[in-house]
Amino acid sequence: MAGNSFGSVFKLTTFGESHGIAIGGVIDGCPAGVSINFDRIQEEMDRRKPGQSKIVTQRKESDSVEFLSGIFEGMTTGMPIGFIIKNNDQKSNDYSHIKDFYRPSHADFTYNEKYGKRDYRGGGRSSARETACRVVAGSIAKQFLSTISIKAYTSSVGTISLGKNHHNFDLSKTESNIVRCPDLNVAQNMIKKINAIRKKGDTIGGTVSCVIKNVPIGLGEPVYKRLHAQLGMSMLSINAVKGFEYGSGFEGVKMKGSEHNDVFNPDGSTKTNYSGGIQGGISNGMDIYFNVAFKPVATVMQTQETIDKNGNSVKIQGKGRHDPCVVPRAVPIVEAMAALVLADFYLLNRLSKI
Amino acid sequence: MAGNSFGSVFKLTTFGESHGIAIGGVIDGCPAGVSINFDRIQEEMDRRKPGQSKIVTQRKESDSVEFLSGIFEGMTTGMPIGFIIKNNDQKSNDYSHIKDFYRPSHADFTYNEKYGKRDYRGGGRSSARETACRVVAGSIAKQFLSTISIKAYTSSVGTISLGKNHHNFDLSKTESNIVRCPDLNVAQNMIKKINAIRKKGDTIGGTVSCVIKNVPIGLGEPVYKRLHAQLGMSMLSINAVKGFEYGSGFEGVKMKGSEHNDVFNPDGSTKTNYSGGIQGGISNGMDIYFNVAFKPVATVMQTQETIDKNGNSVKIQGKGRHDPCVVPRAVPIVEAMAALVLADFYLLNRLSKI
Amino acid sequence: MAGNSFGSVFKLTTFGESHGIAIGGVIDGCPAGVSINFDRIQEEMDRRKPGQSKIVTQRKESDSVEFLSGIFEGMTTGMPIGFIIKNNDQKSNDYSHIKDFYRPSHADFTYNEKYGKRDYRGGGRSSARETACRVVAGSIAKQFLSTISIKAYTSSVGTISLGKNHHNFDLSKTESNIVRCPDLNVAQNMIKKINAIRKKGDTIGGTVSCVIKNVPIGLGEPVYKRLHAQLGMSMLSINAVKGFEYGSGFEGVKMKGSEHNDVFNPDGSTKTNYSGGIQGGISNGMDIYFNVAFKPVATVMQTQETIDKNGNSVKIQGKGRHDPCVVPRAVPIVEAMAALVLADFYLLNRLSKI
Amino acid sequence: MAGNSFGSVFKLTTFGESHGIAIGGVIDGCPAGVSINFDRIQEEMDRRKPGQSKIVTQRKESDSVEFLSGIFEGMTTGMPIGFIIKNNDQKSNDYSHIKDFYRPSHADFTYNEKYGKRDYRGGGRSSARETACRVVAGSIAKQFLSTISIKAYTSSVGTISLGKNHHNFDLSKTESNIVRCPDLNVAQNMIKKINAIRKKGDTIGGTVSCVIKNVPIGLGEPVYKRLHAQLGMSMLSINAVKGFEYGSGFEGVKMKGSEHNDVFNPDGSTKTNYSGGIQGGISNGMDIYFNVAFKPVATVMQTQETIDKNGNSVKIQGKGRHDPCVVPRAVPIVEAMAALVLADFYLLNRLSKI
Repeated sequence: MAGNSFGSVFKLTTFGESHGIAIGGVIDGCPAGVSINFDRIQEEMDRRKPGQSKIVTQRKESDSVEFLSGIFEGMTTGMPIGFIIKNNDQKSNDYSHIKDFYRPSHADFTYNEKYGKRDYRGGGRSSARETACRVVAGSIAKQFLSTISIKAYTSSVGTISLGKNHHNFDLSKTESNIVRCPDLNVAQNMIKKINAIRKKGDTIGGTVSCVIKNVPIGLGEPVYKRLHAQLGMSMLSINAVKGFEYGSGFEGVKMKGSEHNDVFNPDGSTKTNYSGGIQGGISNGMDIYFNVAFKPVATVMQTQETIDKNGNSVKIQGKGRHDPCVVPRAVPIVEAMAALVLADFYLLNRLSKI
Repeated sequence: MAGNSFGSVFKLTTFGESHGIAIGGVIDGCPAGVSINFDRIQEEMDRRKPGQSKIVTQRKESDSVEFLSGIFEGMTTGMPIGFIIKNNDQKSNDYSHIKDFYRPSHADFTYNEKYGKRDYRGGGRSSARETACRVVAGSIAKQFLSTISIKAYTSSVGTISLGKNHHNFDLSKTESNIVRCPDLNVAQNMIKKINAIRKKGDTIGGTVSCVIKNVPIGLGEPVYKRLHAQLGMSMLSINAVKGFEYGSGFEGVKMKGSEHNDVFNPDGSTKTNYSGGIQGGISNGMDIYFNVAFKPVATVMQTQETIDKNGNSVKIQGKGRHDPCVVPRAVPIVEAMAALVLADFYLLNRLSKI
Repeated sequence: MAGNSFGSVFKLTTFGESHGIAIGGVIDGCPAGVSINFDRIQEEMDRRKPGQSKIVTQRKESDSVEFLSGIFEGMTTGMPIGFIIKNNDQKSNDYSHIKDFYRPSHADFTYNEKYGKRDYRGGGRSSARETACRVVAGSIAKQFLSTISIKAYTSSVGTISLGKNHHNFDLSKTESNIVRCPDLNVAQNMIKKINAIRKKGDTIGGTVSCVIKNVPIGLGEPVYKRLHAQLGMSMLSINAVKGFEYGSGFEGVKMKGSEHNDVFNPDGSTKTNYSGGIQGGISNGMDIYFNVAFKPVATVMQTQETIDKNGNSVKIQGKGRHDPCVVPRAVPIVEAMAALVLADFYLLNRLSKI
Repeated sequence: MAGNSFGSVFKLTTFGESHGIAIGGVIDGCPAGVSINFDRIQEEMDRRKPGQSKIVTQRKESDSVEFLSGIFEGMTTGMPIGFIIKNNDQKSNDYSHIKDFYRPSHADFTYNEKYGKRDYRGGGRSSARETACRVVAGSIAKQFLSTISIKAYTSSVGTISLGKNHHNFDLSKTESNIVRCPDLNVAQNMIKKINAIRKKGDTIGGTVSCVIKNVPIGLGEPVYKRLHAQLGMSMLSINAVKGFEYGSGFEGVKMKGSEHNDVFNPDGSTKTNYSGGIQGGISNGMDIYFNVAFKPVATVMQTQETIDKNGNSVKIQGKGRHDPCVVPRAVPIVEAMAALVLADFYLLNRLSKI
């Protein structure tokens, strides 16, 4: 099974390379009757787009999406929703210098080995440009799931970390700053850090956290399609992601069961929520929350040693306009993938009982 | 799509509840021509089985697997491999006390809400007993992938941690002790810790780490079926798992790109391996390594407050024979799931080129 | 994707060879809350079983099914339903004579070429014994779809044909005779024909027709999963089937559009039903009806020329106890496959609208 | 599972409505390294396109395909191949008269019932315009399967039939006439018949036959994904198809086993080929051949009684430019679907042995 589809009944298939004519996708399985607000889709796209602030790549791409099918008179029809996003800023000549080189910690080497050939322009299919399609589909999923709130934010940049759980922050402040951190003081530090890194031609990693509220009880399909397993897979499918944890996560391993167990209230809610809103792979109605680790971007503006396709040592210098830190632009991507996972399970849950 | 199948072309489907007649599964897509060593399957089962040491549950289950099809004269035929494991030690009466109660941080509440009904005996389908089937299938996957080495080990119990990368240990020592930790001193501390926890009727979490060597270049299917995304999903589908990280993982977010990039050697191998053997979602031939976080087992032998199905407050006391710490028995399960993921991608990689 | 699963959300996976220990299957996705009548399952099994009358194979197999999971206190739980049917009458020595021979128009040659090895005992996996598992699952699907009526019957044996549409017969008479034909006179001729063929050690083909009533409007998923396309696929997956037609079928090609169009009544029903209850791939509430062509069974009791695995000419003589005509036993199999298709689409239709 | 994808590992997903902006698709799983001849794709498109001769619809659509991804420097890269075909000749106002009406034997009624809403312009998604995308993908599949020959032809129009097996004709003559029948005399009769029907504003059905030569042994996946079951499903998924038969088909039911069995030659080929090149669901290397029944087109240029969405009786008159007989344009569609099925199984067969 080729890997360009995501989801089972609410299903996104994407195509396109960074510097081809267009990228795009097909959403199959979106139910009929969803009113589509196109402005909201563009707003999500704008949160992801290059050039939006001084701490992200300065490439200029308008990233406007054209819908080709599946929406009629402003409403989904149940038919597949085809869409494309043209690649306006192709500048393929920027990349001729990497045609025969394998950039360190990129996909150049592995794509070439696996397929025997690759579209080397801008990373081709392995470029994070593909994630624009995820944001389109995720925005439609959000509109379908209109009662569910999905909010992601930057929780760390390098060693600068919020250090506390989402309960301690007002997430409505996330979009008030360019790094998308709900604590404005920490945000300023993060921005300074990214700027300093950028000036050195280097890059830095970070984490994105996400909180999902008002999730219906019952989402998730045991045993292999546990809700958190699909959330984890969805996040790990985003470029540069190295880790995923939900609820108590890696810290939870240090706890005792008597501490970690979430005691029920009479209404089925729980007093604590170390479970992260998921028990036995199924949502229990409490907040779902998780963290996603992003490595530092591999394209640095410094000279690096590497090899060409014949194994010869060469030196390369990063060119072009790249992100010094991926997390500010990753925030809407994390939300989009979460929305796609929830839309799938929301529909599947209609099949659980007679 | 119901959730009891795993994999795309090397596919496992499992069934069975903890205290039903039998659990079992079907492996569909195992190629013809794999010689099956049944003793090796049983050895893997024995690593997972209850009662194997003083630090695991003292339930006695022989966990012997009966193959019903797909293997003829000791060799796979390409036909589906059906198998069952009888539940000898059913003792259903042990569980009548939880029939109408929702145990904290178990799946009782969510299963009841989702399905309207549940087999409450021993956790029914949500029990980790299901993982025995994964070990059967994983062992066959290992035999198919005979040149690949997959070794998991306990890397932490509570706050007692190995604290170092797998390069620092001789993994052949993992099975020399009952907690399955390759450092014998640390192992003793872990065992003491688990014993102390058990005596208090409490439980503790831990982490399992895994190293995969001799992986062919080219496994993984971009963009959604990245190798690490499927590994992550597979691990998160195991009972009690709260997090997954590979390569540099959550620590890697603190690094700079110039540090984190893995510089190539002339043969395509890399000098460092922060990438964890995977670049662009595809194996690059270097060691794959990852960590898996397991929460403390929810069943404690202490009195806990909880609710019954009508929302009334009740007190429950854990009964039966449960694991004070799940990680020693989780080691073979982690290996099994990794083997299933690799078998799938090993086959899919045959389709990448003309 | 290996081929031993059927359906998307109501999914059957089967395993087992004709002369292995057992055959069996897993039904994943049957909703929770279906009350299971085990006697009705056995009744369906008895309609398919060998030895039921003088015109079918005289093999004796009790064909009793054991359910291992997924049904608790007489009701489905939403968990996978595992089941096995033991092969009591294995008599493997009957088949040693075909170990190295390729029987004409059997799967011996193709299985050997494809897999390099085969379980030759009784045809192994290619035996129609596998269809017993379909009948089990189909019976559960029928119980889930309790308001829908699915009735198949023998419509021709060799050149002896009912020759008319189902409207002309009282289908409640189908089970009153051993050939399962609703016209008792024609049934007698069919039985005589089969007896005559059997005495010559030969076999004969036939057709099974099926009528489905009370189908909800809306089943079927355009464009590739049209209802009739899945029905056709399901029937063509049954051993010995060579053709499928629905509604006006092959005769309809001779008609003009002005004749063939089904004029609507004010309530949305149609005056005629050349469409066969399906328009645009979606059920319209009218009766669905179709025909399925079964070739003559390949195992004849006469001496035949064939080759061994080295290409040498050999003569073989059919042994054992085989069906002179497959259609009487195929009737419940056709119903079972139709039920599985409908169950799948019945569930999927819950996803069509917001 | 929404229904707009076809295939498992060589997978086509399509989108688009008859009178939307564009139709298009994504081919995921085409191996890297296929050299693409774009002229050959356009030639196949031209065989399907409207306006190609006097006996087909006189709509003018250029049907030129734009590839957006997955092909680099004339060769497939293993990445998803996205493509669109713009709808130049939209003329949506032609269809306002059917906005609230249900045309007899069209999908208007069922789509409205299933989805609550439909794009009524030109039949929307239910239009056969979607098949243009199948021809694009089928042409790429043919180029991948360059050694296999797939040839379809018109075998009957109404009651005018070739009446004989493909062995009796020179299939290279199929494209020499506008009805695509390899017997030039019969072709002339068919053309006359279609012209006469067209003048009356009526339509007529027909059959398309297809022969596939040089098929490797081993294609097909038992038991549910038998090669002929997938071929049948693929054909039944084409608009207006009512039946499918392969090999001896419906006529074969009249034969005895002793006549129908295909006796082997020493090389594994068979003296006769009633099996139609498939035994046990797997190709045996002999010619695969099958027939597909197409009903008369539902849009007639005569006045018809029907109902509106409120159940009121209304009269409608077919407008626009429609096909009097669909089979001449269906010939390349049948070939395309066959190519997609074979490409899928060709790849899957790489997984059958260790």
